[in-house]
Amino acid sequence: MAEDRKASLALSIRAQEDKIKQLKTNNAESTDIDAEIAVLKGLKQELDALSGGDKKKKGKAGKNAFTLKTAKGTKDHNDKEMAIREKVFSTISKVFKKHGAVTIDTPVFELKEILAGKYGEDSKLIYDLADQGGEECSLRYDLTVPFARFLAMNGKEYQNFKRYHIAKVYRRDQPAMTKGRMREFYQCDFDIAGTYDSMIADSEILKILTEALDALDVGQYTVKLNHRKILDGIFEVCGVPEEKIRPISSAVDKLDKSPWEDVKKEMTEEKGLPEEVADKIGEYVKLKGGRDLLEKLNADEALSNNASAKQGLADMGLLFDYMDIFDITKKMSFDMSLARGLDYYTGIIYEAVTEKSAPPAVTEGKKPKTKPNSDELDESTVGVGSIAAGGRYDNLVGMFSGVNKKGQPNLQIPCVGVSIGVERVFSILMSKQKAEEIKSNETEVYVIAVGDGLLKERMEIANELWKNDVKASFLFKNKPKLDKQWAACEKDHIPLAVIIGRDELDKGEIRIKDMRSKDDSQGSGATVKRTDMVQELKGRLAQIYNQ
Amino acid sequence: MAEDRKASLALSIRAQEDKIKQLKTNNAESTDIDAEIAVLKGLKQELDALSGGDKKKKGKAGKNAFTLKTAKGTKDHNDKEMAIREKVFSTISKVFKKHGAVTIDTPVFELKEILAGKYGEDSKLIYDLADQGGEECSLRYDLTVPFARFLAMNGKEYQNFKRYHIAKVYRRDQPAMTKGRMREFYQCDFDIAGTYDSMIADSEILKILTEALDALDVGQYTVKLNHRKILDGIFEVCGVPEEKIRPISSAVDKLDKSPWEDVKKEMTEEKGLPEEVADKIGEYVKLKGGRDLLEKLNADEALSNNASAKQGLADMGLLFDYMDIFDITKKMSFDMSLARGLDYYTGIIYEAVTEKSAPPAVTEGKKPKTKPNSDELDESTVGVGSIAAGGRYDNLVGMFSGVNKKGQPNLQIPCVGVSIGVERVFSILMSKQKAEEIKSNETEVYVIAVGDGLLKERMEIANELWKNDVKASFLFKNKPKLDKQWAACEKDHIPLAVIIGRDELDKGEIRIKDMRSKDDSQGSGATVKRTDMVQELKGRLAQIYNQ
Repeated sequence: MAEDRKASLALSIRAQEDKIKQLKTNNAESTDIDAEIAVLKGLKQELDALSGGDKKKKGKAGKNAFTLKTAKGTKDHNDKEMAIREKVFSTISKVFKKHGAVTIDTPVFELKEILAGKYGEDSKLIYDLADQGGEECSLRYDLTVPFARFLAMNGKEYQNFKRYHIAKVYRRDQPAMTKGRMREFYQCDFDIAGTYDSMIADSEILKILTEALDALDVGQYTVKLNHRKILDGIFEVCGVPEEKIRPISSAVDKLDKSPWEDVKKEMTEEKGLPEEVADKIGEYVKLKGGRDLLEKLNADEALSNNASAKQGLADMGLLFDYMDIFDITKKMSFDMSLARGLDYYTGIIYEAVTEKSAPPAVTEGKKPKTKPNSDELDESTVGVGSIAAGGRYDNLVGMFSGVNKKGQPNLQIPCVGVSIGVERVFSILMSKQKAEEIKSNETEVYVIAVGDGLLKERMEIANELWKNDVKASFLFKNKPKLDKQWAACEKDHIPLAVIIGRDELDKGEIRIKDMRSKDDSQGSGATVKRTDMVQELKGRLAQIYNQ
Repeated sequence: MAEDRKASLALSIRAQEDKIKQLKTNNAESTDIDAEIAVLKGLKQELDALSGGDKKKKGKAGKNAFTLKTAKGTKDHNDKEMAIREKVFSTISKVFKKHGAVTIDTPVFELKEILAGKYGEDSKLIYDLADQGGEECSLRYDLTVPFARFLAMNGKEYQNFKRYHIAKVYRRDQPAMTKGRMREFYQCDFDIAGTYDSMIADSEILKILTEALDALDVGQYTVKLNHRKILDGIFEVCGVPEEKIRPISSAVDKLDKSPWEDVKKEMTEEKGLPEEVADKIGEYVKLKGGRDLLEKLNADEALSNNASAKQGLADMGLLFDYMDIFDITKKMSFDMSLARGLDYYTGIIYEAVTEKSAPPAVTEGKKPKTKPNSDELDESTVGVGSIAAGGRYDNLVGMFSGVNKKGQPNLQIPCVGVSIGVERVFSILMSKQKAEEIKSNETEVYVIAVGDGLLKERMEIANELWKNDVKASFLFKNKPKLDKQWAACEKDHIPLAVIIGRDELDKGEIRIKDMRSKDDSQGSGATVKRTDMVQELKGRLAQIYNQ
């Protein structure tokens, strides 16, 4: 298996190298070439990892010969990456907060039994903690199950609750660097819990999703939309036996990756559905549209006589009304092929797809991974096009609350939520910028000495700037060379420099230089009275940051 | 052991109940009583946990009978707690960023061998992941070792680096709810890496520490300050054999919790130091002061002839000069009894102590926990008074870099850092506020209908507000009762309400009510033209938030 993958990687690497050569020959845009080089690097890293990689980083002496690396499927995020991540997180949380959301935090590990039976066959991907005495624990696999556990424990206080949670989750999956699939990655969930009138919270979630995607500037996207009750109604009307509804639904869910023929084969050959039933389903699931499709389905006598479909269609009617008010209908595609993998959805389901999910998928020689029956979104992969997903799940909290004598859950808190694939958003945004151009620090002013070092004078000025809330730095040397100071200032993209010299200080003067200007006519900056320094800097900074 | 603790807890609970009764009888301040009730609650929780607790939360039916709780030593942080946490994090990062810091992120788990041999006997507290095939991994125990590992891997790019990291760490310690000692808790580290001239970075770290503590408003504090090389010099001068220097240093480190007699006994009886040597040490370690102490030590002939002490004293001389420039000397106490537990410090060491570390320690019937020889700060406990700590560690990165033929590390990156005990800061700040008074959401406007529900009209108004970046919510009901809408608005501390009615809407009007005002004379709010609504709200919000 690993050997197969290695052989296929070697081939992909050669193909990728040829592609880059070709691009260079054709004088392609340098950003395009860079993107292809990034893919090449990823391929090489994966091959390296499969080959027991990172040998060169091993310590040389015997007793220090441990592998200096992060654990498989995990990585450090350096300051440039973190600058992008923090921007993404703050953009998203700003949207969430605009809609009244609060955040909560749950532990990174949960009791093993809390996660048990929630993820179907993907439960094998759960990380367990070692048995060191005491409770059996596992790292969280997503943020939804811990949220439901929290609601079950605190349901009295949190009957009505808009909460978001941006945090890392863990899956012991086969990492694929080239596809960005990691074992540790961020999820970003927003959920509304509470018993409300039909489709109001649902429509606000969709509004929030569009606001977040618009704010993130990820390019064109479409939100595919469907309703579990309509799907179930279709399956019933077509003659799918009840016990086969979920397996058949999960076959439909593969339509975004596989042609109808393959899906039909799964239904008939693997799951034993009669061919004519599969064909009837095929007629329905190829439908997509807007309110026109809703009308068409309403006019379908078989469907509108089915209790489940009828309720779903009524919901969709309301939802279209509300989406019109929120002015988001134009972003939606009512798509009967959308089924979503997870069993626990009970109402509307949705998935946002974008054209720009980068980096490009590399799939040659590798069987497509089956979609995990796990979370609202398989965020551990990028490049597939799906950038957010979610739906309504009214019964998950009840699974934790225990049941009463009648076998009913002690507590039911209906929920609807969305999970934004932030790892994909990072990939898209990182691919737009060159790392060296990202300013990861916020320093506004660098204090530079000409001549004799003037350490204490530089410290005094920095101290005065800090006191006045100006973000300032200086070089930690007694007598730094001038070029080293310029270089530090430029490397950190610091916009302004305060330059001091002995003679000028004696005259009560300093100089201020705009480091962004390539205009050499300003020479070594403008002379400013020492006492006016802070005011002058603040004025210039206001100009720079309000531009 | 657990039974002892249970008995002692039962006693403490009775004593605490009496204390509260007494306070109530004496009409004590309600905040004081609340604080004591919080302690009582903590005691009861700990007893509950020891007794196998949370039985009442178990599901009632047989098959659902799993324990609905978080794993031992971990807890959820609700929206109110998160509001305080986020405020603390943003306050601290603002200070760090003012000084040019960037942030990086490292994985929650590391290869087991990366953590091995870094924490002495506390290594037993490391959480391991289960062996599910593949690498052996452990949850991070602190943020310093992963940072050193990062530098060793990326040292070329990060020769000069100011980085902060606020994240959770994991210690399989015996949790003590009453003392706030958890198995999952936040650390907040700031470090400066790089080869610089002496004491410049060190003084900026101390400046940053004081700025952060001032900004956090944790009350009065003092930063205890010492230098490892001076301490080592003292030990040498007093006649401590080289191999006993670290064990004796670790005995001195207990002076903040134990009287000199106990420490001396440890030195002589446990660690085999001659009594006269211990007595000599005792003369030194009781010294504390400012620059006067430095002068006294400089005048000490034995000490100033010792190479190690001489270098430490020279460092301290420079440090005092720089601290004077940064105007922080007044917060410092040069304290010869400060030794810090960790072996890896090589230069100055420091620890900030405050009077206000809450909640009060409950120690009756329990042997004081020995100070862990682990991290810059035992942040897992609160109430001890220490709120931040750190020091210079020049050789830790070299432990990861491998050694060359001469046995020298391939890469040396000297570091100096500080760790702020954010869990203690949270405790202090939470104890200052009543939970119900904390506004955890940011909603500014609640849209309320009088009369017939007016759902679509409320949605239209909310949509208009969102579009104009006003944070708005409304009740997800078709025909909500008026009192339910008021209650939701009040519960969330939303300052303004937009009130709509059929008649007014027909006239093109809405009403705006200031919900903070207890003044009933404003009645049901001010009538405003529908078209002026956004502008009027923005004006009022600017007033509210710029007050």
